[in-house]
Amino acid sequence: MIATTPEPPYYAAIFTAQPGADDAGYVETAARMLILAESQPGFLGVESAHEAGGGITVSYWRDLESIAAWRRHVEHQAAQREGRARWYARYALRVARVERAHAFDGAVV
Amino acid sequence: MIATTPEPPYYAAIFTAQPGADDAGYVETAARMLILAESQPGFLGVESAHEAGGGITVSYWRDLESIAAWRRHVEHQAAQREGRARWYARYALRVARVERAHAFDGAVV
Repeated sequence: MIATTPEPPYYAAIFTAQPGADDAGYVETAARMLILAESQPGFLGVESAHEAGGGITVSYWRDLESIAAWRRHVEHQAAQREGRARWYARYALRVARVERAHAFDGAVV
Repeated sequence: MIATTPEPPYYAAIFTAQPGADDAGYVETAARMLILAESQPGFLGVESAHEAGGGITVSYWRDLESIAAWRRHVEHQAAQREGRARWYARYALRVARVERAHAFDGAVV
């Protein structure tokens, strides 16, 4: 669930989406996109959580070019079109440069 | 669910957490923190999604100083201590500068 990422700086693609009425094929495609993303150059990790009203997926990347290349990936582009046509009522994608990060792992503090 | 934010640049605080064994008081405090955050200077919006294994909350802020001031807020600091002592097994907080954003609102594309 919590991605292990290197020291900043690196980039985050914050994808927030509200589902539409038609989820046919969504689960399979989402799983495939996750596997595909993980094999892309510059991929660092991913975190996601979904509830009935919507979901958030944050993927982490080495640099902007890695994100741009993933956005242009032909199979990902087909999934993006399906997303707009069928699966998502609304979404937002924000690309951000991670400048600071800290983690808590349950140790006494 | 999807925050309405101004044109970039602005900042995102990406908080990813895995729940611990003790959730006493969590829901009430989380609701209170949301209300309190929304009243802080520089707050722009928030998005969150939670499932059994963990949750993601992304809050958006005008600048780094707004985030720092919210982190130092005395009531928020008490909640952070409770979070580490009781509610969270693990968490990560990343502060990132949003450089680009785009939204899809269901229009034909």
